[in-house]
Amino acid sequence: MLEDLKQQVLEANKDLPKHHLVTFTWGNVSGFNQEKQLVVIKPSGVPYEELELEDLVVVDLQGNVVEGKWKPSSDTPTHTALYRKYPYLGGVVHTHSPWATSWAQAGRDIPCLGTTQGDYFYGGIPCTRKLTSQEINTDYEEQTGNVIIETFEKRGLQPGQVPGVLVHSHAPFNWGHHPKDALHNAVVLEEVAKMALHTYQINPDTPEMDQALLDKHYLRKHGVNAYYGQ
Amino acid sequence: MLEDLKQQVLEANKDLPKHHLVTFTWGNVSGFNQEKQLVVIKPSGVPYEELELEDLVVVDLQGNVVEGKWKPSSDTPTHTALYRKYPYLGGVVHTHSPWATSWAQAGRDIPCLGTTQGDYFYGGIPCTRKLTSQEINTDYEEQTGNVIIETFEKRGLQPGQVPGVLVHSHAPFNWGHHPKDALHNAVVLEEVAKMALHTYQINPDTPEMDQALLDKHYLRKHGVNAYYGQ
Amino acid sequence: MLEDLKQQVLEANKDLPKHHLVTFTWGNVSGFNQEKQLVVIKPSGVPYEELELEDLVVVDLQGNVVEGKWKPSSDTPTHTALYRKYPYLGGVVHTHSPWATSWAQAGRDIPCLGTTQGDYFYGGIPCTRKLTSQEINTDYEEQTGNVIIETFEKRGLQPGQVPGVLVHSHAPFNWGHHPKDALHNAVVLEEVAKMALHTYQINPDTPEMDQALLDKHYLRKHGVNAYYGQ
Amino acid sequence: MLEDLKQQVLEANKDLPKHHLVTFTWGNVSGFNQEKQLVVIKPSGVPYEELELEDLVVVDLQGNVVEGKWKPSSDTPTHTALYRKYPYLGGVVHTHSPWATSWAQAGRDIPCLGTTQGDYFYGGIPCTRKLTSQEINTDYEEQTGNVIIETFEKRGLQPGQVPGVLVHSHAPFNWGHHPKDALHNAVVLEEVAKMALHTYQINPDTPEMDQALLDKHYLRKHGVNAYYGQ
Repeated sequence: MLEDLKQQVLEANKDLPKHHLVTFTWGNVSGFNQEKQLVVIKPSGVPYEELELEDLVVVDLQGNVVEGKWKPSSDTPTHTALYRKYPYLGGVVHTHSPWATSWAQAGRDIPCLGTTQGDYFYGGIPCTRKLTSQEINTDYEEQTGNVIIETFEKRGLQPGQVPGVLVHSHAPFNWGHHPKDALHNAVVLEEVAKMALHTYQINPDTPEMDQALLDKHYLRKHGVNAYYGQ
Repeated sequence: MLEDLKQQVLEANKDLPKHHLVTFTWGNVSGFNQEKQLVVIKPSGVPYEELELEDLVVVDLQGNVVEGKWKPSSDTPTHTALYRKYPYLGGVVHTHSPWATSWAQAGRDIPCLGTTQGDYFYGGIPCTRKLTSQEINTDYEEQTGNVIIETFEKRGLQPGQVPGVLVHSHAPFNWGHHPKDALHNAVVLEEVAKMALHTYQINPDTPEMDQALLDKHYLRKHGVNAYYGQ
Repeated sequence: MLEDLKQQVLEANKDLPKHHLVTFTWGNVSGFNQEKQLVVIKPSGVPYEELELEDLVVVDLQGNVVEGKWKPSSDTPTHTALYRKYPYLGGVVHTHSPWATSWAQAGRDIPCLGTTQGDYFYGGIPCTRKLTSQEINTDYEEQTGNVIIETFEKRGLQPGQVPGVLVHSHAPFNWGHHPKDALHNAVVLEEVAKMALHTYQINPDTPEMDQALLDKHYLRKHGVNAYYGQ
Repeated sequence: MLEDLKQQVLEANKDLPKHHLVTFTWGNVSGFNQEKQLVVIKPSGVPYEELELEDLVVVDLQGNVVEGKWKPSSDTPTHTALYRKYPYLGGVVHTHSPWATSWAQAGRDIPCLGTTQGDYFYGGIPCTRKLTSQEINTDYEEQTGNVIIETFEKRGLQPGQVPGVLVHSHAPFNWGHHPKDALHNAVVLEEVAKMALHTYQINPDTPEMDQALLDKHYLRKHGVNAYYGQ
C-alpha cells in the first residue's frame, strides 16, 4: 500500500545525511496521504543507509500502526498532530541540524534578514515556548506537536507560508507539500539559521528586511503571479 | 550560435556547486559576447547537474530571448543592466554564497584587510543601499542592476578593479573577463567574506590594510608591470 | 587473543577520521575485556589508514604490554586508570576534536542546553581542574586519568550517565559500553560542543535546559522504561 | 638533479588542497638541499593538479634559476631568505589557509592555549610587524623573509621550536625538517588558529597554558627524552 508515498519517504530519509542535516539517526521524515488519512514514517533508530522500503511504518492519524514490522519513530505523535491540524501538509521533517538547533536551544526566533529566507519563508521562523513539566510528562511527543500548533495559531501564522518551526530547547521541524518539499525547507532553514547568526556577528543592529522586498521575493516564487522557474 | 561561450557558461554554472557557492539552484552565471551584443545565461530553476548546452538561453541586451526553449534566469535583467553599462565585462555570476550573503544581509561593505583580497579586489567590496519600495515594485531585477551601477558610479569605483558587489538584504554579484573569471572572483569573495568576519572577531579594531601593500599585491597581478604567474 | 575486541578497537580507531574527530594521529581508542582484565589499544603514532589488527597492543591494567610488537599509545595510563576505577566501561576514546578541545582550552564545562545533549549525557559535560606541576612531572598520563576520576567523584557524577569529560588545557576523553559506543559519544560531544558555543552567541543568557525535559529525553533512551529504538 | 627532493616537493604541493589549506593556487612548498645549497620550488601560478616533476624549478640561495622551464613562485625570495638564515630548515610552506590568515590580518600572535599547539609549537605563534612602505616597494618578497627573521631574532625565538609565523596583513609561513614536515606544521597551525578563536569566544579571559604542561607535551615529542611514537 502507498508504494509511491513510501518511495518518496524513503528517498527523503536517505537524503537527510546527504544534506548534512543529521548525525547518526537524529532525524526522520514522514509523508501523508490525505485521501486515505495515513502517514508513512521512518522506523525508530534505524540507520538511513540500511533503510529499505519494507522498513517504513504506516500509521493512522491516531498513531496506530497499520502496516510495518518495526516501531515507528518515537516522534510520530508530533508528526500526526501536525497532519491532523493541517491536513494540507504532505510531508514533515524533523532533524537536529546544528545551526537551526542552536537557535532552538537559544529560544530565539530567526528573523527574516534577507531574500534567501524570503524566497521560502514569508517572514521569521518562530521558536515555541518551553513545554511545561506536565506537558513533558504526559504525551510528550504529542505535546510537542501541540505547542507547534499553538505557536502558529496564537501568532496568526500560516504553516503553508512559514514551513518550519524551532521547538524550544530541542530542534527544528519542517513541512511541505510532499516529503521532498519538506526536506527542501529543512535545508533552507539550516542555511538561513547559519547566515542569521553571522549577519548579527557582522552587524548586531541588523533590522529585519523591508516588507516590500520580502513580498517581492516570496510572491515571485509562491504567489498567484509567481514567475520564478519554468 | 555562440557555441564557445555557451560551453564556458555551462561549465561555470556546473562549477557553482563544486565550489560550494550554491544550495539547490541559488545562483546563475552568464557570459557576454561583445561583438554580437548577446548574453548566454542559465535557465530559471533548472538544477546544475541536469543542465546541458541546449538548455542555455540566449538573450539580447534588452532581455529578449533570441534562442532557447526555457525561460532565462529571473535575474537576467540584472545581468543585462551590467553588460549594457560595462560592456567590457565578459561574465557575471550571482550566488547566495553564505559568508558573502551574511555581509549583504548586514548591509556592510567588506573592508580590505589583507593580501588575499588585495590580490583580486583593489580595495573594499561595496554593499549597495537598500532598494526603495518603488524600485522593488517596478522592474525589480533591473533596479537591482541599477543600484549596483549607482554604487560604483557614486563611489568612483571601477568594476574592472573591484569585481564584485553585495546587494543589500540580498546577496552578491561578481563579474570578470569571462564566465570562469567571474566565477573565480565569486570564490575569492566568499573566502575573504569569511576571513573578514573572523578577523574582526579576533581583533575588533583591525584597520584596513596599508595602501602600499594593497598597491603591491593588486598591481603585481593586475598592473602593466604584473609579474605573478607565467 | 581477544580477536573480537581487537576487531572492535581496530574499526573504532579507523572511524575516528571518518567522523572528522582527528587530524593526523591525534586520537586513540581502546577496549576493555572485563573477564580477562585486559585492554586492547592503538599503538603510538601509527596512522589510522595503515593500522591493522596485528598492530594493536594488549596491555594489563598496570600498563604492562601482554601482546604486541609496538609501543602502546602514550595515553595508555589514562585509559587504564579509567578501567581500573570504572571496570564497567568497555571502551575509551581520546581525541583532539576541535569544538570539544576549544571548551577544554577555555577551561569550561559544557552546560546541557538541549535535547541533543540530553539524549546521551544526563547533564553538563565537566571540565577538570588544571593538573599541578607536580602531577604533570610525575606520571603525567596516569595523573590525567586521576584528575578525570577526581572530577567525577567530587561532583558526584556517574561515568555511566555522563560519558565524557574535558581535560583542562588539553582535550576530551569519552567512554561507553564498548569501543563503538565510546566513539559514538565522542561524536555527540563534538556536535554539542559546537552547538553550545553557537547557542551562547545567539543568546548569551541561555539557561540550562529544564530538568523535566532532560529527564524525559535521557530516560526515554537510557532508563528502565526506555522506548526509543527497536 | 635532486630527484628525491623534487618528489617530496611535488607531493607536498599536491597535498596542499587535500588538507584544505589552499584555494586555487594560493600556496607553495619548497625544499632545501643543504649539501648543494639548492632550493626546489613550485612554479608561479600553476594549478596543483596539473603539476608534474618537470614543472618544478631549482634555484640557488640568491634566487637564480638553475633548472626549470617556468618562473619560480613569486614568493621565492621569502623562501630563500629563510634558508640562508636558517640552513637547517629542509622545507618551507606558504599558504593563505583561512583561520591562520584571519589571525595574520588581525595582526595578532596565536597564544599557546593547549596541548594541541604545545605538541608542535614550543609556545605562541608570532605575528610580524607590518612592513614599511619602503620595504614593500623594494624587494618586497625578500623583505617579507627579513621581517620573519627579525621577528624571531628580536624575540629570541628558535624556528626549530616554533615552526611557523604569521606575516602581518598577509598570511602564514611554516617550515620543518623536510617539505612534508613543513606541510604537517601548516596543518597544525590552521587547526590551532581555528581553536584559539573559538576558545576565546567561549572564555575571553583564557590564559596561556601552564609552562609545565607545555614543557611536558613539547618535550615528550621533541626533546632528547621524547617517548611519543615508535
